[in-house]
Amino acid sequence: MGGDHGLRASLPAALKSLKAYSDLELILVGDGSLINQSIPIPNEFASRVSVVHTTESVSMDEKPSRALRGMPDSSMRRCVELLKENRVDGVVSAGNTGALMAIGCHLLKTIKGIDRPAFCAAVPRLDGVTFLLDLGANLECNPAQLHQFAVMGSALSSSVSGNENPPVALLNVGEEHIKGNKLVKEAAALISSDLGLNYVGYLEGGDIYSAKADVVVCDGFVGNAVLKACEGTAHYIRSYINTLLKNNNLLKLYAGLGRFFFKETFESLNPDTYNGASFLGLQGVIVKSHGDSNDNSFFSAISLARKEVKGDIPALIANHMNERNN
Amino acid sequence: MGGDHGLRASLPAALKSLKAYSDLELILVGDGSLINQSIPIPNEFASRVSVVHTTESVSMDEKPSRALRGMPDSSMRRCVELLKENRVDGVVSAGNTGALMAIGCHLLKTIKGIDRPAFCAAVPRLDGVTFLLDLGANLECNPAQLHQFAVMGSALSSSVSGNENPPVALLNVGEEHIKGNKLVKEAAALISSDLGLNYVGYLEGGDIYSAKADVVVCDGFVGNAVLKACEGTAHYIRSYINTLLKNNNLLKLYAGLGRFFFKETFESLNPDTYNGASFLGLQGVIVKSHGDSNDNSFFSAISLARKEVKGDIPALIANHMNERNN
Repeated sequence: MGGDHGLRASLPAALKSLKAYSDLELILVGDGSLINQSIPIPNEFASRVSVVHTTESVSMDEKPSRALRGMPDSSMRRCVELLKENRVDGVVSAGNTGALMAIGCHLLKTIKGIDRPAFCAAVPRLDGVTFLLDLGANLECNPAQLHQFAVMGSALSSSVSGNENPPVALLNVGEEHIKGNKLVKEAAALISSDLGLNYVGYLEGGDIYSAKADVVVCDGFVGNAVLKACEGTAHYIRSYINTLLKNNNLLKLYAGLGRFFFKETFESLNPDTYNGASFLGLQGVIVKSHGDSNDNSFFSAISLARKEVKGDIPALIANHMNERNN
Repeated sequence: MGGDHGLRASLPAALKSLKAYSDLELILVGDGSLINQSIPIPNEFASRVSVVHTTESVSMDEKPSRALRGMPDSSMRRCVELLKENRVDGVVSAGNTGALMAIGCHLLKTIKGIDRPAFCAAVPRLDGVTFLLDLGANLECNPAQLHQFAVMGSALSSSVSGNENPPVALLNVGEEHIKGNKLVKEAAALISSDLGLNYVGYLEGGDIYSAKADVVVCDGFVGNAVLKACEGTAHYIRSYINTLLKNNNLLKLYAGLGRFFFKETFESLNPDTYNGASFLGLQGVIVKSHGDSNDNSFFSAISLARKEVKGDIPALIANHMNERNN
């Protein structure tokens, strides 16, 4: 029950998701007395919620190695243990990403055929979402890993969208086949010869918002920089408009009117709706919520984890990898 | 006089810049009869404009090698020759980037100490601009090249902003010193030990809009993906709002009112204002305007080239490199 805002965000999100999904049961893992002192759980949900008390919590700047080896009773580790013991079907955390990755890899192991898990998030489009991976779990990749990312992203996308052959692209500096570095060119050779994938070629950074591909693959350094640049741009545009508003009463009135008339419409632009990144390739569902998640964005992360559990994404990926190895 | 919109964009931009800068003289290079048939040059500017006729033009999908070796009378090559012959102080082109890079490198050569030119653009911030480089001229870099990019970006930034010690950062997946891949860590060691640079450490993709650094350095693959992702996000937000407007008459009226009241304010958000990317590291000023430049954005590129000529950026970079080699 971590993240920058702790229980203030995660508990309201838990209640909201119990209300939204009647099939959902939750185990809240963390400081039991703090959890019990916070918002009381309404009686109608009591049978679907339990609390597991832990004595340690991994801070946002903790070294992953210490979180893994030196904190046996952390809430994060306990969550992943519950998953390994099949007492839960999925884990959602807003805590330290590196620690979650280290604990997940160590306890759950990767799916056969997957070298390392990848970090994957959905980017909104006018007509759906694009799954972008890797987002920073693997800063130096080889072509075989990018191929594995393509298989995993394709499995997730097909499960979420229902399209069995989602278009898959490689992120590159241009669309022409002569473009790119050695990694991208070698990955393109591997991915394009995989008949189980609907490979559509190279895409550029701005095309993640287009319908050209539902899955866009890149190494974790590039994916991390691109995703944060997208978030930074959206944030910059918001700040710019807010600065204009501050200095102009007529604009302030205009914006107030807009908020009043079109509240629902503009809320669909809210990035909280798309929060939640998946660790793909592990033998279990783990979703990472943004560190500064509020209750709405944490709720989105819980919804994503539920979707992945329903689609049994780890089994789906395992099947896809099996087909390729046989 | 190329780019997607050809003379329709570049000629009005030329006239606009002659009007804006009384010290500016222009040589228009391209199909002379087409140029003369287009917008007539007003008498007041006639003494500051001349036309150099060429018989070939490099198309946007031409191979750089053919543009370099097989087209001796292309307008692009002629421009760079004029620069080499000191008949002009700078070149602006909206044409084929790869061809411009190849011709520039071949005819002008790089500054002593610079292995390869870098492609650099200004990203707008609330309080200034951030120079981001490389943007795709060098897809695989070594640490020494990132160090050279830092020196060149710093020279450009200090000349444009007047701040003699602009803060310089390396783009990374996190700000902590343990973060990053081998390239970034080795580059950080080189750049941080260069006392002529105001190195401030690592920045993440979204921080290019913050005042933490005026120069952000990365390899060309990452920079290209990041810049295009920024443009893609801005474009997505615009498209999203336009889609809302199409389906809602009340919103349409609201937006119309906004455009009417706040025309000038919203125009300052126009990306055309920031158009123009510099080839840094060549022995001469070359500015690349976006392929789909209109007259306003092409004008911005001419303004940037003028600024670089005034600041004699190639000499400034040469001095900086000399200091380091002695």
